[in-house]
Amino acid sequence: MASTSSAALSQALLPRATSHHDSNPSADRVSLSSRSLPSFSGLKSTNSAAIAASSRRIRPCRSLRGVVRASVAETVNKTTETSLIEKSVNTIRFLSIDAVEKANSGHPGLPMGCAPMGHVLYDEVMKYNPKNPYWFNRDRFVLSAGHGCMLHYALLHLAGYDSVKEEDLKSFRQWGSRTPGHPENFETPGIEVTTGPLGQGVANAVGLALAEKHLAARFNKPDNEIVDHYTYVVLGDGCQMEGIANEACSLAGHWGLGKLIAFYDDNHISIDGDTEIAFTESVDKRFEGLGWHVIWVKNGNNGYDEIRAAIREAKAVKDKPTLIKVTTTIGYGSPNKANSYSVHGSALGAKEVDATRQNLQWPYEPFHVPEDVKKHWSRHIPQGAALEAEWNTKFAEYEKNYPEEAAELKSIINGELAAGWEKALPTYTPESPADATRNLSQQNLNALAKVLPGFLGGSADLASSNMTLLKSFGNFQKDTPEERNLRFGVREHGMGAICNGIALHSPGLIPYCATFFVFTDYMRAAIRISALSQAGVIYVMTHDSIGLGEDGPTHQPIEHLASFRAMPNILMLRPADGNETAGAYKVAVLNRKRPSILALSRQKLPNLPGTSIEGVEKGGYIVSDNSSGNKPDVILIGTGSELEIAAKAAEELRKEGKAVRLVSFVSWELFDEQSEAYKESVLPAAVSARVSIEAGTTFGWEKIVGSKGKAIGIDRFGASAPAGKIYKEFGITVEAVIAAAKQVI
Amino acid sequence: MASTSSAALSQALLPRATSHHDSNPSADRVSLSSRSLPSFSGLKSTNSAAIAASSRRIRPCRSLRGVVRASVAETVNKTTETSLIEKSVNTIRFLSIDAVEKANSGHPGLPMGCAPMGHVLYDEVMKYNPKNPYWFNRDRFVLSAGHGCMLHYALLHLAGYDSVKEEDLKSFRQWGSRTPGHPENFETPGIEVTTGPLGQGVANAVGLALAEKHLAARFNKPDNEIVDHYTYVVLGDGCQMEGIANEACSLAGHWGLGKLIAFYDDNHISIDGDTEIAFTESVDKRFEGLGWHVIWVKNGNNGYDEIRAAIREAKAVKDKPTLIKVTTTIGYGSPNKANSYSVHGSALGAKEVDATRQNLQWPYEPFHVPEDVKKHWSRHIPQGAALEAEWNTKFAEYEKNYPEEAAELKSIINGELAAGWEKALPTYTPESPADATRNLSQQNLNALAKVLPGFLGGSADLASSNMTLLKSFGNFQKDTPEERNLRFGVREHGMGAICNGIALHSPGLIPYCATFFVFTDYMRAAIRISALSQAGVIYVMTHDSIGLGEDGPTHQPIEHLASFRAMPNILMLRPADGNETAGAYKVAVLNRKRPSILALSRQKLPNLPGTSIEGVEKGGYIVSDNSSGNKPDVILIGTGSELEIAAKAAEELRKEGKAVRLVSFVSWELFDEQSEAYKESVLPAAVSARVSIEAGTTFGWEKIVGSKGKAIGIDRFGASAPAGKIYKEFGITVEAVIAAAKQVI
Repeated sequence: MASTSSAALSQALLPRATSHHDSNPSADRVSLSSRSLPSFSGLKSTNSAAIAASSRRIRPCRSLRGVVRASVAETVNKTTETSLIEKSVNTIRFLSIDAVEKANSGHPGLPMGCAPMGHVLYDEVMKYNPKNPYWFNRDRFVLSAGHGCMLHYALLHLAGYDSVKEEDLKSFRQWGSRTPGHPENFETPGIEVTTGPLGQGVANAVGLALAEKHLAARFNKPDNEIVDHYTYVVLGDGCQMEGIANEACSLAGHWGLGKLIAFYDDNHISIDGDTEIAFTESVDKRFEGLGWHVIWVKNGNNGYDEIRAAIREAKAVKDKPTLIKVTTTIGYGSPNKANSYSVHGSALGAKEVDATRQNLQWPYEPFHVPEDVKKHWSRHIPQGAALEAEWNTKFAEYEKNYPEEAAELKSIINGELAAGWEKALPTYTPESPADATRNLSQQNLNALAKVLPGFLGGSADLASSNMTLLKSFGNFQKDTPEERNLRFGVREHGMGAICNGIALHSPGLIPYCATFFVFTDYMRAAIRISALSQAGVIYVMTHDSIGLGEDGPTHQPIEHLASFRAMPNILMLRPADGNETAGAYKVAVLNRKRPSILALSRQKLPNLPGTSIEGVEKGGYIVSDNSSGNKPDVILIGTGSELEIAAKAAEELRKEGKAVRLVSFVSWELFDEQSEAYKESVLPAAVSARVSIEAGTTFGWEKIVGSKGKAIGIDRFGASAPAGKIYKEFGITVEAVIAAAKQVI
Repeated sequence: MASTSSAALSQALLPRATSHHDSNPSADRVSLSSRSLPSFSGLKSTNSAAIAASSRRIRPCRSLRGVVRASVAETVNKTTETSLIEKSVNTIRFLSIDAVEKANSGHPGLPMGCAPMGHVLYDEVMKYNPKNPYWFNRDRFVLSAGHGCMLHYALLHLAGYDSVKEEDLKSFRQWGSRTPGHPENFETPGIEVTTGPLGQGVANAVGLALAEKHLAARFNKPDNEIVDHYTYVVLGDGCQMEGIANEACSLAGHWGLGKLIAFYDDNHISIDGDTEIAFTESVDKRFEGLGWHVIWVKNGNNGYDEIRAAIREAKAVKDKPTLIKVTTTIGYGSPNKANSYSVHGSALGAKEVDATRQNLQWPYEPFHVPEDVKKHWSRHIPQGAALEAEWNTKFAEYEKNYPEEAAELKSIINGELAAGWEKALPTYTPESPADATRNLSQQNLNALAKVLPGFLGGSADLASSNMTLLKSFGNFQKDTPEERNLRFGVREHGMGAICNGIALHSPGLIPYCATFFVFTDYMRAAIRISALSQAGVIYVMTHDSIGLGEDGPTHQPIEHLASFRAMPNILMLRPADGNETAGAYKVAVLNRKRPSILALSRQKLPNLPGTSIEGVEKGGYIVSDNSSGNKPDVILIGTGSELEIAAKAAEELRKEGKAVRLVSFVSWELFDEQSEAYKESVLPAAVSARVSIEAGTTFGWEKIVGSKGKAIGIDRFGASAPAGKIYKEFGITVEAVIAAAKQVI
């Protein structure tokens, strides 16, 4: 097989950091000496002071060819190999340049600068199977600087993924293509998460690495390390500036995620120009403070050995995540645009593309992959198949020796829920004691943790307020990663994005996370990515209204229910009592490709007659009714804590002889999905006398109550006072519902 | 005057860091030796390694009284003074304890631990005038850990602010009180900004310090430093974990905000328990990386001299902000609850209050301020008046010598807009070239910068996309702070909160900030604080729809217009062309107590006949109409880039003989505020044939189009493709409007 010799050559000549290839069962088995290699003397962990002194130098593009030639001169053997690698790297550069040029839209700068690290990762280091992008034990790669997605598409293309064929590269950023403008896991197999909004990807990567560490701790055995992969992430200056990145990286350091290796593309250019104008902190020192191991690769443009050695060093540090700062030139190879913001986010233009082809001695047509490069990469298809096959064998052994664990792990890998899992959900009767839905939520969380092996989560430092602790488990910590209570600290944004990473690691991992509902504002960008990227995270959001009382308007959500009802592909659930809370969890667990937000009360609520899990599944349903012929005098509609108020008003009105239907409207999205007949059975078009009550904005409620109905709500900020007082002052009362009902009847 | 001797005594006996008191013209003038004092030898900048080794020790509460006695033994004179200060500090502690106890709600832990630093700041260091909390040249104090607000209320009470009388302390957290559950600038004079959501306050403080540095650079003269104050902030572990804090502090370091002094209340406790469980990074090292000067006060519980010396050292470092890490015991003085999370957010309970009274030897009734403490603090009223009077004299001199600058500064101080400022706004005719509203926005920004001396702002690394550069000005940087272009880097959340600080520094400072509209998700918590705290920030949000094209769904707002229309006290403006963009800016500038968000297009839009600034001021208005008697056949309603589509549809329908009214609905909030008569004149109740079109969610549009109307919009995520293609595929077209109109007529 042709690829064998080239791979063997590569492996024989170059120090390799890929200890995992030791277990590579493909035809070209070679003994890798990397494990016994001494640590590369030309490279060491950064010294902050030295970096501060020298990191601001600008690397002029014109010297680049000289550098290539210098390395060419070293040894004959190495020359052959290096030149092929250089050719492969330039293939990545030009596939990126050409795709952006054809689309006349995109970001060529990052792929041109990061092609070397991308090449080393995908060609030499990472374990993956191109023909099964979802193979469980693959190494994960995240391009946090998602705008540079042509780098990733080019790598997937060379590696042999069916999702990125030549025609896909040619339809980059076009309608219906598999190569959208930013990486989207739901469009392109091989893409792990959805990035583009900066900082999200590195936080996702923390989640992926957390998932690996957790599963490895739970399932690995001395004789069988069935869970064993790395998580790699490339992030740029933009990601580094985002607060979410600091949040997630602080946790990664705290948790000691040793198999997380981050490449910081240190190119000193962001959209506004040189990072000098807004970003002069010492990233190295900050990451050391965050508990990371930090390495500096000074020549990211063609320092292949430096990159390899850095990865080797990173893998050797097992108790800390590693940041490899790779100094690169954005738009490397473009004679007139490299090292400037102009190459960041626009096509180079025909003239500069030509000049770059000249400069990098690239005689090929657009989108051409030279035959020797193709041949070089072709080994990844058989190697990947072999890696997976070997792992399957390993899993078969595991299954034989550890049948229980294997069954559990299997359910996490394939996402199948155990039959009858939903029977674990607690049920309630009107006689059950009144309780806050946040407490009822905790009963559900603990019940679910018993039947869902992939259920884990926690709160942003509000566990005892959000009521999110799993009582049968301890804390996931550096030395107890097998546990399932995650302690996120006060880092809502990082928490959401980490949960996205966990959810997208394996279909059977079901992460939940919690804070006060109002602080969804801190993590909204991550929640939106959950919705967009089909990550079924469960958001446990307590203290969901003015009902939280004294903490006041900074803590009282008003517009939040509406703001999520307006967001695509997310379920906004506001249960009213025990049965509805259980129903909300049933829905949330079943929706693995759609996140759910549960808005839960701080205050006690009674268990109402007529509520049900089945009702919740329909989004809106009749809780009680004394009308006949689908013709009530008035329909009262409530959600969450206000359903009780609506129920009391219904009772009063019925005493006065009115035919009153009480409807719980726990999820607008689920109701929208019901048949027209069902909707008509709950909200008959002929009945325009409708009153809604919800302790939040009335914005949007016209859709439900119609022009002739009345929506009772709060269209101002809240206030600091005991909850009952605010309800009264704001008119969220039984009396107000009765008065409104009489107006509209 | 009784207060004189006590103040003089205090000043004579204690090293003081208050060089500003040199200029104190009050009766009790004393010569302060602090400037010539050698630097305090017991204190030095932190050594990260030493801190890492020792910072985790727990300080047992039982040793506290011993510590007090040790210091008592030092000298007789000092004993007297220290015991009074200790008494004053305990007054702060017990006012906090008693208020929380009476409310049976609140956070006693922080005030008990931070009382010493609070005392030193308000009693010894800060310049302020209790009888005029808005005196321009006051030092600013921000309690970023806003839950500890009783600390601040107690200090304001002792200092003599009319906003916090004894009855206010007694009505802590009650309906209508001036002492709400978190600090709210709009409720309590003396509170600078609204905090509680963690991390916001420290970012606000960066904005306040930026404002001072900017104004000082613009207005100070060698003979008259008319702008000269410090910004102090207290932040806790929670703030430190939030990403926004890192963003803002990275900028503070970059900008070299030397007059920003942050106290980090290092108490090792957050709601979930010891910070060990989620927060083990080295904060010191991170802040050194961020370019801050870092000092560690090891005994924050009663190390008054250490605190004073730290402030002196911080003031001496003029080119960097300073973080003073003050190690304290949360709930200091409570024998059974100190140093635990149980004292963080609940009343101590009667029994523990008694025990604490015993422990701290506090024999007084609840809310009692001992006479000697009262007397000690009473000097601040005359001193504050004198400070302001002296500054007024200084300003009079300044006005005499620099009349032009004085006039400009005055307008910034009092917020009065120059007569006729709005004439600077550009105007357009249908013949003006089509242009993107982001470009038209830039014309407005540059026009406004010429007539509004307090107008400044910038973008989160998207200046050339958001079109936000002020062409007549350079970049605000460490060494060019007089300039007005702010470069925030990719730090949206920090940017928003910094702008809140700028806006709340002086009524005439009008900050704007910019990013892509979709990334309001990153800064939503700060935007909400703008709305709540009445900070008239102008949010310039470009790329406001699928119209941005190829970047795809991660970059395309869908639910964002609705999400802000649902938020109280904010103006969501979506102008359609040049005149509407100018109108949006007019509204935004006039609304100094309500933030505005301008949603602006990436793509070119024509200037439409019939649009106007006056129309925008009404929120919704008739752009064109061929009906009579207020009875059109159909009303077509558009916003922003879709007004053009609605206009074309109107034209087509009119050709077919229909009476069509075209309405621009640029701001729902402004329209809501118009008279019923006006609203009826635009949207007559009798006309139910209405069609709206907007390239965003239809959520909420039922309110405008009614049950019989039709809302054309996008209720899914966007897509990556050229903009025109997406518009067509999503049905945001002239044809769709015509078809819908025919359905509803």
